[in-house]
Formats: sequence, structure tokens, C-alpha cells
Amino acid sequence: MNKPLILIVNDDGISAPGIRFLIKTMRKIGEVVVVAPDSPQSAKSHSITITTPLRYKTIEETKDYREYSLNGTPVDCVKFALHRLLQNKPNIIVSGINHGSNASINIIYSGTMAAATEGAMGGIPSVGFSILDYNENADFSYSESYITDIVNKILADGLPKNTALNVNFPKSNGKAYNGIKVCRQADGYWREDFDERLDPRDGKPYYWLKGDFLLHDKAEDTDEFALKNYYASIVPVKFDFTDYNNISTIKSFEI
Amino acid sequence: MNKPLILIVNDDGISAPGIRFLIKTMRKIGEVVVVAPDSPQSAKSHSITITTPLRYKTIEETKDYREYSLNGTPVDCVKFALHRLLQNKPNIIVSGINHGSNASINIIYSGTMAAATEGAMGGIPSVGFSILDYNENADFSYSESYITDIVNKILADGLPKNTALNVNFPKSNGKAYNGIKVCRQADGYWREDFDERLDPRDGKPYYWLKGDFLLHDKAEDTDEFALKNYYASIVPVKFDFTDYNNISTIKSFEI
Repeated sequence: MNKPLILIVNDDGISAPGIRFLIKTMRKIGEVVVVAPDSPQSAKSHSITITTPLRYKTIEETKDYREYSLNGTPVDCVKFALHRLLQNKPNIIVSGINHGSNASINIIYSGTMAAATEGAMGGIPSVGFSILDYNENADFSYSESYITDIVNKILADGLPKNTALNVNFPKSNGKAYNGIKVCRQADGYWREDFDERLDPRDGKPYYWLKGDFLLHDKAEDTDEFALKNYYASIVPVKFDFTDYNNISTIKSFEI
Repeated sequence: MNKPLILIVNDDGISAPGIRFLIKTMRKIGEVVVVAPDSPQSAKSHSITITTPLRYKTIEETKDYREYSLNGTPVDCVKFALHRLLQNKPNIIVSGINHGSNASINIIYSGTMAAATEGAMGGIPSVGFSILDYNENADFSYSESYITDIVNKILADGLPKNTALNVNFPKSNGKAYNGIKVCRQADGYWREDFDERLDPRDGKPYYWLKGDFLLHDKAEDTDEFALKNYYASIVPVKFDFTDYNNISTIKSFEI
């Protein structure tokens, strides 16, 4: 039997510890192709590069492993892999492991999850992995068996059409996670602030975005609740933005 | 009675004809603040600027009109307006008029609609407008009465919580539109290709993204169907990505 073809992407860039761990884990399962940004691309969401050209570099090409970097966004990486670099459609796309949470509203800013969603849009079972740890030395060890189980399950049974998975892991406390829960996206919001500083060149102000995450949602079926209780979370994610519950309300506007 | 405070943003940049038309239209309704990217930001989706600082320029400040440009994305513009430039919360955020369609899956790449969604995330009634015409001389005239009616209706009655509106107008054929329809997002996909060229510097290849839009969805309740029949389309949009219909399927995975 042929080994499954696994496409790996991320948004933290090709040298991030998260993708290196994911590569190692996926090479135990199948033939791996990596197409990842040549520099960090956090918070790029579903953006694509249209005003500058794309260039890629071949980092390694062997029989069951290929690795490329691209000067683009995570979604560019998926499109370039599917429509330029790969001869065959991958059996699965895995994105990450992202350094930092993509739970709750963080998903909307996430390049990691946008890459997974782009994969699902192309009809390929896709999953994004994140860990709530920005540290270069983040401990991924307890995520490995979950990642392996999820990927093997998807390779065996597929995913529902038009659905990607958003998987988040708590920051390791040195013990195995309590388990994994299928959740909905928690209702949260970033209350932003802008840090003003003065430019030494001309004395004019410039600004850095900073913010606090506000969790409005205290329910127990959310990703935030699972993570807080040291469970991994899985949220099935779709890319139909239509708010079906409010179609009749808007119709009643009679514009 | 105080005039309503209207925040205008876009993704084509502050000098695009679409935003100039929207500014003119909104100044008939209320006090207007414009915060728009200083350069085109198409296809930036919900990305935010975190690795470079933001700077803004004041273009005009009068009693009932203020205009600023920002070196950021459309979502940066909303955040910077709400959390830095404005003293009061706007009564509405209007984004656009985008040059090009944000119907069907185009919404996922759209900076125009990301800005509207970011507004809704902040609890502000928000609407994005687009016209299916990239031309610098696009004819916006038949959109004006719809835009005015929609904005007045929202100012009077608000929008459902966590819902933004995605409004698209057909390219003008020199006649009034046939009407406006409340729709769902059509199921479509961009089949991409990459145009390879050789760099005159070093003879190495570089690539431009190009693609064809495939409409899988032939139903009559979609935005694509309305637009094709010379109706404007309104899709209510939400930012909870959870695929509720598949939570039980994923639970049955028993990972």
C-alpha cells in the first residue's frame, strides 16, 4: 500500500519549533511535503499575495520527503503546493503546530487555521494544530499521541465535506493532558489598545497594537473551557459565513 | 438631535473611487470619520499588523468630517479608529465600496468584509459594500439609494448582535438594478494557477497567482444568483466559525 501524502504548512515560518515537531511526527505516518513561509506570518488570516510575485526555495528533496519555503502567506503556501508543486492531491493537510492559541475569536486572525480552511475549500481533509505556548522551547510532547490519532483517523475515514478541524493544546504543565473535547468556538473579543512611542528620526508618534482578551462566554461546551481545564480542544470549522438564523430578520427590513 | 457618527473604512485605499463615493453619500447622513489604508490592501482578509509599527496621517479635520490614512490593513483601520482616534463609539461602520465582488467564497479573502466583521465583533452595526466592477470609472450611481436606505435602516433599528451585512452590487449596465435580495453565500471555489516568469536578474522563476472562479452552486437563493440577475445581494454574516452540524460527527470519532 502506498504511504499517504501529507502536506504540512504553518504560519510561524519554516524554522519554527512547532512545524519541526509536526514534520517529525508526520514522517512516522506518511510521505511528507512541507511548504511553509520563509518568515513568520502570524495574524495574516486568509490573506493572499497578489501585488508582489512569489518565489520558492527547495530545501530538501528525497524519495519520501520534500521541503520548500515560500515568500508568501500560509494560504499562498497551500495554493502554491496544490496548484504548482504537487503532482498528486495530498491525502491530508496539517497546519502548525502554531505557537499561541487559536481558540475562540483568535481563529479569525490565524494564518494557521486559514491554511487548514483553504485546504478544506479545495476538498482536502485539513486540520490546524496550535499550542498555548509562545516559547521557543514549548513542550509539544503530550500533543504527539493526539496528533497521531487525529491524523490517522482522518486518513482512514475523512472529514465531512467543507469542514476543517481546529485543534488547540494547553501549555504543558509537565503531565499528560486530561483528554480531548469536541467544542464550539467560545465567544470572546480582543479589547485593543495602541502603545504610542515617538520616532527618534522625526519625533512623530508611531503605534504598536496590544490588547487584552475578554472571554464573554462562561459556558462549558467551549474550546476556552476545555483548554482551561487542561483538555485539548477540537472545533469543527466551516467557511460558509452566512448567518442563517438572521436571514429572516434581514428580509423583514424590506429595503 | 445629534447627527449619527459614521466610521468609513475600505481595503482599496484612501484614494479609491469606491470610498470617495461612499464618503460623499455618508456625509448626507451624518458626521463622518474616515480611517483608510494609505495604499491598496486587497485580499488582506482579517490580517492585522503586529511586526511593524502603525503610523497615521491627518488628511482633514473639520467639525463634522475627519479623514485619516493609516499604513495598515483594513482591520487595523477599524481597531485604530475605535481604540485610538475616536472619542465616541460610532453608530455604524461602513466599509467599501470595494472594487470587485465579495460574493460567494470571495468574502474569505476580503479586507472590506473583514473590516465590517471586526466592527460587528466590537458590537457596532457594520456593513460592507462591494461592486462587481474593478474599473476606476465604475458607475456607482445606482447603488446610492440602496446604500442610503440600508444605512438609515441600520441607524434606526440596529442589526442582530454578532451579525454584519455583506452587500454586493452588480456592475452597472446603465439602468437601475432590478432590486435587492437577502441571500446566502453561494458555494464557490477559486481554481488557481500560477503564472511562471523568469527574473531578468538571475534567470530564476517567479510566480503570479491567477485563477478561475468555479460556481458549484446553482440554487436561486444565493448572492451569485441575485447578482447574475442584476439584483443587489445582502448576506448576513457571522464570525462564529463552528460547524455545529458536524459537532456530533466529530464527537463520534472518539479520539
